[in-house]
Amino acid sequence: MRYHKIPDETVRRLPVYLRGLLSSAKQGQQSISSRDLADLLGVNPWQIRKDFSYFGDFGTRGVGYNIEKLTKQIKKILKLDIACKVALVGVGNLGSAVLAYSGFKVYGFDIATAFDIDPKKTGKKINNITIEDASNLRTLKRRKIDIGNIAVPRDAAQQTADALVKAGVKGILNFSPCHITVPKKVKVITIDIAVDLARLPYYTLAS
Amino acid sequence: MRYHKIPDETVRRLPVYLRGLLSSAKQGQQSISSRDLADLLGVNPWQIRKDFSYFGDFGTRGVGYNIEKLTKQIKKILKLDIACKVALVGVGNLGSAVLAYSGFKVYGFDIATAFDIDPKKTGKKINNITIEDASNLRTLKRRKIDIGNIAVPRDAAQQTADALVKAGVKGILNFSPCHITVPKKVKVITIDIAVDLARLPYYTLAS
Repeated sequence: MRYHKIPDETVRRLPVYLRGLLSSAKQGQQSISSRDLADLLGVNPWQIRKDFSYFGDFGTRGVGYNIEKLTKQIKKILKLDIACKVALVGVGNLGSAVLAYSGFKVYGFDIATAFDIDPKKTGKKINNITIEDASNLRTLKRRKIDIGNIAVPRDAAQQTADALVKAGVKGILNFSPCHITVPKKVKVITIDIAVDLARLPYYTLAS
Repeated sequence: MRYHKIPDETVRRLPVYLRGLLSSAKQGQQSISSRDLADLLGVNPWQIRKDFSYFGDFGTRGVGYNIEKLTKQIKKILKLDIACKVALVGVGNLGSAVLAYSGFKVYGFDIATAFDIDPKKTGKKINNITIEDASNLRTLKRRKIDIGNIAVPRDAAQQTADALVKAGVKGILNFSPCHITVPKKVKVITIDIAVDLARLPYYTLAS
Protein backbone atom coordinates (compact mmCIF):
# COMPACT_ATOMS: atom_id res chain seq x y z
CA MET A 1 0.00 0.00 0.00
CA ARG A 2 1.22 3.45 -0.93
CA TYR A 3 0.25 6.38 1.28
CA HIS A 4 -0.29 8.98 -1.39
CA LYS A 5 -1.60 11.70 0.83
CA ILE A 6 1.38 12.06 3.17
CA PRO A 7 3.04 15.43 2.42
CA ASP A 8 6.78 15.50 1.67
CA GLU A 9 7.38 17.62 4.76
CA THR A 10 5.85 14.88 6.91
CA VAL A 11 7.92 12.21 5.14
CA ARG A 12 10.96 14.34 5.94
CA ARG A 13 10.11 14.25 9.65
CA LEU A 14 9.14 10.56 9.91
CA PRO A 15 12.75 9.28 10.15
CA VAL A 16 13.36 11.75 12.98
CA TYR A 17 10.30 10.46 14.87
CA LEU A 18 11.43 6.90 14.15
CA ARG A 19 14.82 7.62 15.71
CA GLY A 20 13.08 8.91 18.86
CA LEU A 21 10.76 5.90 19.03
CA LEU A 22 13.61 3.41 18.59
CA SER A 23 15.64 5.15 21.27
CA SER A 24 12.66 5.13 23.70
CA ALA A 25 12.00 1.43 22.99
CA LYS A 26 15.66 0.70 23.72
CA GLN A 27 15.17 2.25 27.15
CA GLY A 28 12.31 -0.16 27.84
CA GLN A 29 9.38 2.21 27.21
CA GLN A 30 6.19 0.80 25.67
CA SER A 31 4.33 4.02 25.06
CA ILE A 32 5.21 7.70 24.71
CA SER A 33 3.19 10.91 24.67
CA SER A 34 3.54 13.38 21.82
CA ARG A 35 4.87 15.86 24.39
CA ASP A 36 7.65 13.50 25.59
CA LEU A 37 8.56 12.53 22.03
CA ALA A 38 8.64 16.22 21.10
CA ASP A 39 10.91 17.04 24.06
CA LEU A 40 13.25 14.18 23.16
CA LEU A 41 13.61 15.37 19.56
CA GLY A 42 13.34 19.10 20.03
CA VAL A 43 10.22 19.51 17.86
CA ASN A 44 6.62 20.69 18.40
CA PRO A 45 4.10 18.23 19.92
CA TRP A 46 1.25 19.58 17.75
CA GLN A 47 3.38 18.91 14.67
CA ILE A 48 3.86 15.29 15.76
CA ARG A 49 0.11 14.83 16.33
CA LYS A 50 -0.67 16.39 12.94
CA ASP A 51 1.93 14.26 11.14
CA PHE A 52 0.75 11.01 12.77
CA SER A 53 -2.86 11.84 11.89
CA TYR A 54 -2.04 11.25 8.20
CA PHE A 55 -1.66 7.52 8.63
CA GLY A 56 -3.87 6.49 11.52
CA ASP A 57 -4.39 6.87 15.20
CA PHE A 58 -2.01 5.09 17.53
CA GLY A 59 -2.49 7.23 20.59
CA THR A 60 -4.63 6.65 23.67
CA ARG A 61 -5.53 9.70 25.75
CA GLY A 62 -3.46 9.76 28.94
CA VAL A 63 -1.27 6.83 27.82
CA GLY A 64 0.31 8.08 24.62
CA TYR A 65 1.37 6.29 21.47
CA ASN A 66 2.07 2.57 21.38
CA ILE A 67 5.77 2.59 20.45
CA GLU A 68 5.89 -0.88 18.88
CA LYS A 69 2.85 -0.38 16.63
CA LEU A 70 3.91 3.11 15.61
CA THR A 71 7.51 2.03 14.87
CA LYS A 72 6.23 -0.79 12.67
CA GLN A 73 3.86 1.52 10.82
CA ILE A 74 6.47 4.23 10.15
CA LYS A 75 9.00 1.63 8.97
CA LYS A 76 6.35 0.24 6.62
CA ILE A 77 5.47 3.67 5.23
CA LEU A 78 9.14 4.58 4.70
CA LYS A 79 9.76 1.07 3.31
CA LEU A 80 12.47 0.54 5.87
CA ASP A 81 10.93 -2.86 6.67
CA ILE A 82 12.75 -4.17 3.58
CA ALA A 83 16.53 -4.68 3.82
CA CYS A 84 18.21 -1.95 1.81
CA LYS A 85 21.69 -2.09 0.27
CA VAL A 86 23.59 1.10 -0.43
CA ALA A 87 26.68 1.82 -2.57
CA LEU A 88 29.07 4.65 -1.77
CA VAL A 89 30.99 6.40 -4.55
CA GLY A 90 34.03 8.43 -3.51
CA VAL A 91 36.22 7.44 -0.56
CA GLY A 92 37.90 10.72 0.32
CA ASN A 93 37.54 12.36 3.74
CA LEU A 94 33.77 12.63 3.46
CA GLY A 95 33.32 9.14 1.97
CA SER A 96 35.49 7.65 4.73
CA ALA A 97 33.35 9.46 7.30
CA VAL A 98 30.22 8.00 5.69
CA LEU A 99 31.73 4.49 5.80
CA ALA A 100 32.56 4.93 9.48
CA TYR A 101 29.18 6.46 10.28
CA SER A 102 27.31 4.47 12.92
CA GLY A 103 23.91 6.06 12.40
CA PHE A 104 22.74 4.01 9.38
CA LYS A 105 22.19 0.71 11.21
CA VAL A 106 19.27 2.15 13.20
CA TYR A 107 17.28 2.38 9.98
CA GLY A 108 18.36 -1.00 8.63
CA PHE A 109 20.72 0.34 5.97
CA ASP A 110 23.72 -1.65 4.91
CA ILE A 111 26.56 0.13 3.10
CA ALA A 112 27.26 -2.88 0.90
CA THR A 113 30.12 -1.56 -1.21
CA ALA A 114 32.31 1.47 -1.94
CA PHE A 115 33.95 2.75 -5.12
CA ASP A 116 36.80 5.09 -5.96
CA ILE A 117 38.86 5.90 -9.05
CA ASP A 118 42.15 6.17 -7.14
CA PRO A 119 44.23 2.96 -7.65
CA LYS A 120 45.91 3.66 -4.30
CA LYS A 121 42.55 3.19 -2.58
CA THR A 122 40.99 0.33 -4.53
CA GLY A 123 41.50 -3.07 -2.92
CA LYS A 124 41.85 -1.56 0.56
CA LYS A 125 39.31 -2.20 3.31
CA ILE A 126 37.49 0.35 5.47
CA ASN A 127 35.03 -0.96 8.08
CA ASN A 128 35.19 -4.39 6.42
CA ILE A 129 34.18 -2.96 3.04
CA THR A 130 36.61 -3.47 0.17
CA ILE A 131 36.95 -0.39 -2.04
CA GLU A 132 36.31 -1.31 -5.68
CA ASP A 133 37.34 0.42 -8.86
CA ALA A 134 34.62 2.78 -10.12
CA SER A 135 34.38 0.78 -13.38
CA ASN A 136 32.60 -1.90 -11.31
CA LEU A 137 29.62 0.43 -10.85
CA ARG A 138 27.86 -1.38 -13.69
CA THR A 139 27.57 -4.48 -11.47
CA LEU A 140 25.14 -2.75 -9.06
CA LYS A 141 21.98 -3.92 -10.84
CA ARG A 142 23.04 -7.55 -10.67
CA ARG A 143 23.89 -7.10 -7.00
CA LYS A 144 20.44 -5.56 -6.35
CA ILE A 145 21.84 -2.32 -4.98
CA ASP A 146 19.18 0.37 -5.46
CA ILE A 147 20.63 3.34 -3.63
CA GLY A 148 23.86 5.26 -4.19
CA ASN A 149 25.65 7.82 -2.03
CA ILE A 150 27.73 10.36 -3.95
CA ALA A 151 30.75 11.71 -2.04
CA VAL A 152 32.99 12.68 -4.97
CA PRO A 153 34.36 16.18 -5.72
CA ARG A 154 31.80 18.62 -7.12
CA ASP A 155 33.14 18.43 -10.68
CA ALA A 156 32.64 14.68 -10.81
CA ALA A 157 29.16 14.62 -9.20
CA GLN A 158 27.04 14.72 -12.38
CA GLN A 159 29.01 12.02 -14.21
CA THR A 160 28.85 9.83 -11.09
CA ALA A 161 25.08 10.34 -10.95
CA ASP A 162 24.83 9.40 -14.64
CA ALA A 163 26.82 6.21 -14.01
CA LEU A 164 24.64 5.31 -11.01
CA VAL A 165 21.43 5.85 -13.02
CA LYS A 166 22.85 3.74 -15.85
CA ALA A 167 23.58 1.03 -13.27
CA GLY A 168 19.89 0.98 -12.31
CA VAL A 169 20.06 2.93 -9.05
CA LYS A 170 16.67 4.43 -8.06
CA GLY A 171 17.69 6.77 -5.27
CA ILE A 172 20.73 8.99 -4.71
CA LEU A 173 21.96 10.70 -1.56
CA ASN A 174 24.21 13.46 -2.88
CA PHE A 175 26.85 15.02 -0.62
CA SER A 176 28.37 17.24 -3.32
CA PRO A 177 27.33 20.88 -2.96
CA CYS A 178 25.68 21.08 -6.38
CA HIS A 179 22.44 20.26 -8.13
CA ILE A 180 22.54 17.05 -10.17
CA THR A 181 20.12 16.19 -12.94
CA VAL A 182 18.59 12.72 -13.23
CA PRO A 183 15.57 11.15 -14.97
CA LYS A 184 12.24 11.70 -13.17
CA LYS A 185 12.02 8.09 -11.97
CA VAL A 186 15.17 8.60 -9.85
CA LYS A 187 14.91 10.46 -6.53
CA VAL A 188 17.82 12.64 -5.44
CA ILE A 189 18.26 14.06 -1.95
CA THR A 190 21.14 16.52 -1.69
CA ILE A 191 22.79 17.11 1.68
CA ASP A 192 24.39 20.52 1.63
CA ILE A 193 25.86 21.19 5.06
CA ALA A 194 26.29 24.87 4.15
CA VAL A 195 22.52 25.20 3.72
CA ASP A 196 22.01 24.07 7.32
CA LEU A 197 24.81 26.26 8.61
CA ALA A 198 23.23 29.20 6.77
CA ARG A 199 20.12 28.97 8.96
CA LEU A 200 22.05 29.44 12.22
CA PRO A 201 22.73 33.21 12.20
CA TYR A 202 18.98 33.84 11.81
CA TYR A 203 18.45 32.24 15.21
CA THR A 204 21.63 33.24 16.97
CA LEU A 205 22.71 36.75 16.05
CA ALA A 206 21.19 39.65 17.94
CA SER A 207 18.91 41.91 15.87
CA MET B 1 14.48 44.29 12.11
CA ARG B 2 13.43 40.78 13.04
CA TYR B 3 10.89 39.03 10.81
CA HIS B 4 8.91 37.23 13.48
CA LYS B 5 6.25 35.82 11.23
CA ILE B 6 8.45 33.75 8.92
CA PRO B 7 7.78 30.07 9.70
CA ASP B 8 10.76 27.81 10.49
CA GLU B 9 10.01 25.72 7.41
CA THR B 10 10.41 28.83 5.24
CA VAL B 11 13.65 29.78 7.02
CA ARG B 12 14.85 26.25 6.26
CA ARG B 13 14.24 26.81 2.55
CA LEU B 14 15.63 30.36 2.27
CA PRO B 15 19.31 29.26 2.06
CA VAL B 16 18.37 26.89 -0.77
CA TYR B 17 16.67 29.72 -2.69
CA LEU B 18 19.67 31.93 -1.96
CA ARG B 19 22.00 29.35 -3.50
CA GLY B 20 19.83 29.30 -6.63
CA LEU B 21 19.75 33.10 -6.85
CA LEU B 22 23.53 33.43 -6.39
CA SER B 23 24.15 30.81 -9.05
CA SER B 24 21.77 32.58 -11.50
CA ALA B 25 23.41 35.94 -10.81
CA LYS B 26 26.80 34.36 -11.50
CA GLN B 27 25.52 33.39 -14.94
CA GLY B 28 24.62 37.00 -15.65
CA GLN B 29 20.86 36.83 -15.05
CA GLN B 30 19.10 39.86 -13.54
CA SER B 31 15.68 38.35 -12.95
CA ILE B 32 14.23 34.88 -12.59
CA SER B 33 10.69 33.46 -12.56
CA SER B 34 9.51 31.28 -9.70
CA ARG B 35 9.15 28.47 -12.23
CA ASP B 36 12.77 28.73 -13.42
CA LEU B 37 14.06 29.00 -9.85
CA ALA B 38 11.94 25.99 -8.92
CA ASP B 39 13.31 23.98 -11.85
CA LEU B 40 16.87 24.91 -10.94
CA LEU B 41 16.45 23.77 -7.35
CA GLY B 42 14.02 20.91 -7.81
CA VAL B 43 11.27 22.44 -5.66
CA ASN B 44 7.65 23.61 -6.21
CA PRO B 45 7.10 27.07 -7.78
CA TRP B 46 3.98 27.68 -5.61
CA GLN B 47 6.08 26.98 -2.52
CA ILE B 48 8.61 29.62 -3.62
CA ARG B 49 5.86 32.19 -4.21
CA LYS B 50 4.30 31.42 -0.85
CA ASP B 51 7.65 31.62 0.99
CA PHE B 52 8.62 34.92 -0.67
CA SER B 53 5.20 36.40 0.18
CA TYR B 54 6.20 36.40 3.87
CA PHE B 55 8.71 39.18 3.43
CA GLY B 56 7.56 41.31 0.54
CA ASP B 57 6.94 41.28 -3.16
CA PHE B 58 9.93 41.28 -5.47
CA GLY B 59 8.27 39.82 -8.53
CA THR B 60 6.91 41.51 -11.65
CA ARG B 61 4.39 39.56 -13.70
CA GLY B 62 6.02 38.28 -16.86
CA VAL B 63 9.52 39.36 -15.75
CA GLY B 64 10.04 37.45 -12.52
CA TYR B 65 11.94 38.30 -9.39
CA ASN B 66 14.70 40.90 -9.28
CA ILE B 67 17.67 38.71 -8.33
CA GLU B 68 19.82 41.44 -6.76
CA LYS B 69 17.05 42.83 -4.54
CA LEU B 70 15.83 39.41 -3.49
CA THR B 71 19.38 38.17 -2.72
CA LYS B 72 20.01 41.21 -0.54
CA GLN B 73 16.71 40.77 1.29
CA ILE B 74 17.22 37.03 2.00
CA LYS B 75 20.79 37.66 3.19
CA LYS B 76 19.46 40.36 5.51
CA ILE B 77 16.71 38.12 6.90
CA LEU B 78 19.14 35.23 7.45
CA LYS B 79 21.70 37.70 8.85
CA LEU B 80 24.23 36.51 6.32
CA ASP B 81 24.99 40.16 5.52
CA ILE B 82 27.22 40.17 8.63
CA ALA B 83 30.58 38.33 8.41
CA CYS B 84 30.30 35.16 10.45
CA LYS B 85 33.17 33.23 12.02
CA VAL B 86 32.82 29.52 12.73
CA ALA B 87 34.86 27.14 14.91
CA LEU B 88 35.13 23.43 14.13
CA VAL B 89 35.63 20.90 16.92
CA GLY B 90 36.90 17.46 15.90
CA VAL B 91 39.26 16.97 12.96
CA GLY B 92 38.69 13.31 12.09
CA ASN B 93 37.46 12.20 8.67
CA LEU B 94 34.27 14.20 8.91
CA GLY B 95 35.94 17.28 10.40
CA SER B 96 38.59 17.20 7.66
CA ALA B 97 35.82 17.01 5.07
CA VAL B 98 34.15 20.03 6.67
CA LEU B 99 37.45 21.97 6.58
CA ALA B 100 37.89 21.12 2.89
CA TYR B 101 34.24 21.87 2.07
CA SER B 102 33.93 24.57 -0.57
CA GLY B 103 30.24 25.29 -0.08
CA PHE B 104 30.48 27.66 2.92
CA LYS B 105 32.00 30.62 1.08
CA VAL B 106 28.83 31.18 -0.95
CA TYR B 107 27.05 32.17 2.26
CA GLY B 108 29.90 34.26 3.63
CA PHE B 109 31.00 31.82 6.30
CA ASP B 110 34.58 31.65 7.40
CA ILE B 111 35.82 28.54 9.23
CA ALA B 112 38.15 30.56 11.43
CA THR B 113 39.65 27.82 13.57
CA ALA B 114 39.62 24.09 14.33
CA PHE B 115 40.17 22.10 17.52
CA ASP B 116 41.08 18.53 18.39
CA ILE B 117 42.25 16.67 21.49
CA ASP B 118 44.76 14.51 19.60
CA PRO B 119 48.32 15.88 20.13
CA LYS B 120 49.30 14.29 16.79
CA LYS B 121 46.87 16.66 15.05
CA THR B 122 47.28 19.90 17.00
CA GLY B 123 49.72 22.32 15.39
CA LYS B 124 49.13 20.89 11.92
CA LYS B 125 47.48 22.90 9.13
CA ILE B 126 44.54 21.90 6.96
CA ASN B 127 43.35 24.41 4.33
CA ASN B 128 45.47 27.09 6.00
CA ILE B 129 43.79 26.53 9.38
CA THR B 130 46.03 25.53 12.25
CA ILE B 131 44.47 22.86 14.47
CA GLU B 132 44.47 24.00 18.09
CA ASP B 133 44.26 21.99 21.29
CA ALA B 134 40.68 21.70 22.53
CA SER B 135 41.62 23.46 25.77
CA ASN B 136 41.78 26.67 23.70
CA LEU B 137 38.00 26.55 23.20
CA ARG B 138 37.64 29.08 26.03
CA THR B 139 39.24 31.74 23.81
CA LEU B 140 36.27 31.76 21.39
CA LYS B 141 34.39 34.57 23.13
CA ARG B 142 37.40 36.89 22.98
CA ARG B 143 37.85 36.01 19.32
CA LYS B 144 34.17 36.79 18.61
CA ILE B 145 33.39 33.34 17.27
CA ASP B 146 29.65 32.74 17.73
CA ILE B 147 29.06 29.48 15.90
CA GLY B 148 30.54 26.02 16.49
CA ASN B 149 30.49 22.89 14.35
CA ILE B 150 30.67 19.63 16.29
CA ALA B 151 32.33 16.75 14.41
CA VAL B 152 33.54 14.65 17.35
CA PRO B 153 32.57 11.02 18.10
CA ARG B 154 29.05 10.58 19.47
CA ASP B 155 30.22 9.94 23.06
CA ALA B 156 32.03 13.28 23.18
CA ALA B 157 29.28 15.36 21.56
CA GLN B 158 27.46 16.55 24.71
CA GLN B 159 30.64 17.57 26.55
CA THR B 160 31.82 19.42 23.43
CA ALA B 161 28.47 21.24 23.26
CA ASP B 162 28.81 22.16 26.96
CA ALA B 163 32.30 23.55 26.34
CA LEU B 164 31.09 25.55 23.32
CA VAL B 165 28.18 27.01 25.30
CA LYS B 166 30.54 27.90 28.15
CA ALA B 167 32.75 29.64 25.58
CA GLY B 168 29.80 31.85 24.57
CA VAL B 169 28.82 30.18 21.32
CA LYS B 170 25.21 30.95 20.30
CA GLY B 171 24.67 28.45 17.52
CA ILE B 172 25.82 24.86 16.98
CA LEU B 173 25.82 22.75 13.85
CA ASN B 174 26.00 19.18 15.18
CA PHE B 175 27.22 16.37 12.93
CA SER B 176 27.12 13.68 15.65
CA PRO B 177 24.13 11.37 15.26
CA CYS B 178 22.67 12.19 18.68
CA HIS B 179 20.52 14.77 20.41
CA ILE B 180 22.48 17.32 22.45
CA THR B 181 21.00 19.45 25.20
CA VAL B 182 21.82 23.16 25.47
CA PRO B 183 20.29 26.21 27.19
CA LYS B 184 17.30 27.73 25.37
CA LYS B 185 19.25 30.76 24.17
CA VAL B 186 21.51 28.50 22.08
CA LYS B 187 20.22 27.12 18.75
CA VAL B 188 21.31 23.63 17.68
CA ILE B 189 20.85 22.21 14.19
CA THR B 190 21.72 18.52 13.95
CA ILE B 191 22.73 17.07 10.60
CA ASP B 192 22.01 13.36 10.64
CA ILE B 193 22.82 11.95 7.23
CA ALA B 194 20.99 8.72 8.13
CA VAL B 195 17.75 10.69 8.52
CA ASP B 196 18.04 11.88 4.94
CA LEU B 197 19.02 8.47 3.65
CA ALA B 198 15.98 7.02 5.47
CA ARG B 199 13.64 9.05 3.24
CA LEU B 200 14.95 7.52 0.01
CA PRO B 201 13.28 4.07 0.00
CA TYR B 202 9.85 5.79 0.36
CA TYR B 203 10.41 7.39 -3.03
CA THR B 204 12.40 4.70 -4.78
CA LEU B 205 11.21 1.23 -3.84
CA ALA B 206 8.26 -0.21 -5.76
CA SER B 207 5.09 -0.71 -3.69
